[in-house]
Amino acid sequence: MTSQRHEADAMRRAIEFSRRGPANGANPRVGCVILDASGRVIAEGWHRGRGTDHAEVAALSALTDRSLAIGATAVVTLEPCNHTGTTGPCSEALIDAGVSRVVYSVADPGASSSGGAERLREAGIDVEAGLLVNEGEENIRPWLTAMRRGTPFVTVKWASSLDGRVAAADGTSRWITGPSARADVHRRRAEAGAIVAGTGTVIADDPSLTARDADGRELPEQPIPVIVGRRSVPRDSRVLAHPAGVIEYPSRDLPGLLEVLATRDVRHVFVEGGPTVASAFLAAGLADEVLVYVAPTVLGGPLTAITDIGVSTISEQARMRFDHVELLGDDVLLVARPLTMNHMHTTKEDD
Amino acid sequence: MTSQRHEADAMRRAIEFSRRGPANGANPRVGCVILDASGRVIAEGWHRGRGTDHAEVAALSALTDRSLAIGATAVVTLEPCNHTGTTGPCSEALIDAGVSRVVYSVADPGASSSGGAERLREAGIDVEAGLLVNEGEENIRPWLTAMRRGTPFVTVKWASSLDGRVAAADGTSRWITGPSARADVHRRRAEAGAIVAGTGTVIADDPSLTARDADGRELPEQPIPVIVGRRSVPRDSRVLAHPAGVIEYPSRDLPGLLEVLATRDVRHVFVEGGPTVASAFLAAGLADEVLVYVAPTVLGGPLTAITDIGVSTISEQARMRFDHVELLGDDVLLVARPLTMNHMHTTKEDD
Ligand SMILES: NC(=O)c1ccc[n+]([C@@H]2O[C@H](COP(=O)([O-])OP(=O)(O)OC[C@H]3O[C@@H](n4cnc5c(N)ncnc54)[C@H](OP(=O)(O)O)[C@@H]3O)[C@@H](O)[C@H]2O)c1
Ligand SMILES: NC(=O)c1ccc[n+]([C@@H]2O[C@H](COP(=O)([O-])OP(=O)(O)OC[C@H]3O[C@@H](n4cnc5c(N)ncnc54)[C@H](OP(=O)(O)O)[C@@H]3O)[C@@H](O)[C@H]2O)c1
Repeated sequence: MTSQRHEADAMRRAIEFSRRGPANGANPRVGCVILDASGRVIAEGWHRGRGTDHAEVAALSALTDRSLAIGATAVVTLEPCNHTGTTGPCSEALIDAGVSRVVYSVADPGASSSGGAERLREAGIDVEAGLLVNEGEENIRPWLTAMRRGTPFVTVKWASSLDGRVAAADGTSRWITGPSARADVHRRRAEAGAIVAGTGTVIADDPSLTARDADGRELPEQPIPVIVGRRSVPRDSRVLAHPAGVIEYPSRDLPGLLEVLATRDVRHVFVEGGPTVASAFLAAGLADEVLVYVAPTVLGGPLTAITDIGVSTISEQARMRFDHVELLGDDVLLVARPLTMNHMHTTKEDD
Repeated sequence: MTSQRHEADAMRRAIEFSRRGPANGANPRVGCVILDASGRVIAEGWHRGRGTDHAEVAALSALTDRSLAIGATAVVTLEPCNHTGTTGPCSEALIDAGVSRVVYSVADPGASSSGGAERLREAGIDVEAGLLVNEGEENIRPWLTAMRRGTPFVTVKWASSLDGRVAAADGTSRWITGPSARADVHRRRAEAGAIVAGTGTVIADDPSLTARDADGRELPEQPIPVIVGRRSVPRDSRVLAHPAGVIEYPSRDLPGLLEVLATRDVRHVFVEGGPTVASAFLAAGLADEVLVYVAPTVLGGPLTAITDIGVSTISEQARMRFDHVELLGDDVLLVARPLTMNHMHTTKEDD
């Protein structure tokens, strides 16, 4: 049998391989590493997106000789599926290949696809669940949240000055954040299934809402742009020529929007603005993650990144925690996520 | 002669020793290390504040035998003074002691105290200026700025949510930032000569404006509190019982206030608010440093940390740079300082 250390190393490697797959799809990123009885890596695979081989099947196909799978250990970031979709169930593929042990990190949250571990055990395979489960879950947080809850994971992003302004008093905002911060936005956009903007932003700024590289070229992964609001979008808006198409949602019903996006297999929604829409998502308690790109400048004036979110007294705040803080060129990125537990400081602030 | 490496090491040590002295006084923090001909440290000294020995004299006094100074090298963070104040000039003390070489980091900016290096050279001592000058200057930035410019260095501090709010809509603000952030504020307060608040904050919150430790005990160094604004301060305000006294400045003339504080030998002013006063300092271009303690929460609503600072269009912004970013418990501290050069991003932000 392979050692615990071999398997933990293989899981880290499988997580890394999983990231080669697309982040913005209906399916999760999954990686698989196959170890021989001595713990040596004999094949690796990852899922390249819906309609392609699952990671386990990809790894089995990567074996120089199929017979090497006999008695081997498959280390996989997600519980092997038990579901005949566009590809056959992975549990059956592993059984047929003759592996003797399967180690996975995250349990499959899908109602129709779960049960893989049970199926493997029935076939006499030794199964271990939950190896590096925190890392494994974090690696597919948006997808996992969406599958467990039934609605997409929501990231609300804004860029502001140190005092929370998105623009000077006259609405001008060029060069608030710099190129590194903007590149980071584009990279993160490309990992979402949909990007949401309000009619206000579309009418005012006519953004293209594409994910682009530093040279302005469109990235291979493009989230679908979604315009939310009752006003109609001008027919010459640039977003209407978006390569991924566009969803016009002529309503202000945000929970309804998330339901619609769930039916379109969107797992991660990137809310880019403007202030009214961002505030509406926060006010409705719909944000799973807040990204704030802070520029080293103070602007003052009326144009705040967030308007009103219905917090009338401090005890009503939805407390978060910082998940990540990063310098990006001249700017700082602050990533915050809701606290799961109620967590409050208990010391007194009297000045 | 001592080697360059010995002297650089000694300068770093002298900078460290300087920090044992008070940061909030009229005099700078200065450290001195004396090396023998082989580069070995034979004495150390630092300045303990106005009216006490200067660092060079303190180091000379720390020698086990005064004759050891003969032929020694004095490494000192600031140019030895040439001024007979409450203590005699350090240049003379070094000459009398018989040192053969003096290495210093920062030139003395004081009109009446400078000329020490020249005096030493006239006496035949080998003098080297500018060793680790960036570290040396940064170590006494507020004092140096105040001496060069004639008015105190100004730190503007606020604590806010991710969206730049200081309180919920009804004014409640307890527990926005946590104990680590508050301890950091108190530590930094204690390093300033004066702490400024507006009549609005004093009337609304009745703060004590003392610098305290985590247990609420007053720290040994207390900046003098300054209340700025035309309204009179209620006679039962807690700040009127401040151990360092209080300055009531019944005007809104902030440059005038800084002139007055300069005559009181204040080198570093810590502006703690509220929003109106902080914004007025920024609007007048008087901030040398901005400290923002950001809590992982979003509040929305009318109570912004900064109100209006007269930036009507983006090109009027006073661009800064991040000097320091730090996690403090659950919160983040962002420290920004004005750019000395005009520095703007040149790429286009079109969405
Ligand atoms: N710095 C940044 O990160 C950033 C990002 C984006 C935009 N901006 C700036 O923001 C400005 C536009 O601001 P904005 O606030 O008008 O834009 P917005 O948030 O994009 O659009 C506001 C509109 O969204 C619609 N909407 C949809 N759901 C809503 C809900 N639940 N509640 C309320 N409204 C809802 C409403 O449109 P209907 O009236 O049509 O129903 C509303 O008028 C632009 O000048 C742009 O430059 C800044
Ligand atoms: N979170 C934080 O970091 C923080 C810190 C401090 C306070 N606060 C909150 O802020 C609130 C008070 O806000 P505030 O803005 O009224 O307080 P403030 O800024 O302390 O005081 C405002 C007053 O300052 C005076 N002033 C002095 N120089 C001025 C100038 N150049 N321009 C304009 N006014 C000048 C004016 O008083 P006169 O009318 O008397 O001339 C003005 O009304 C309190 O509720 C407090 O809790 C928050």
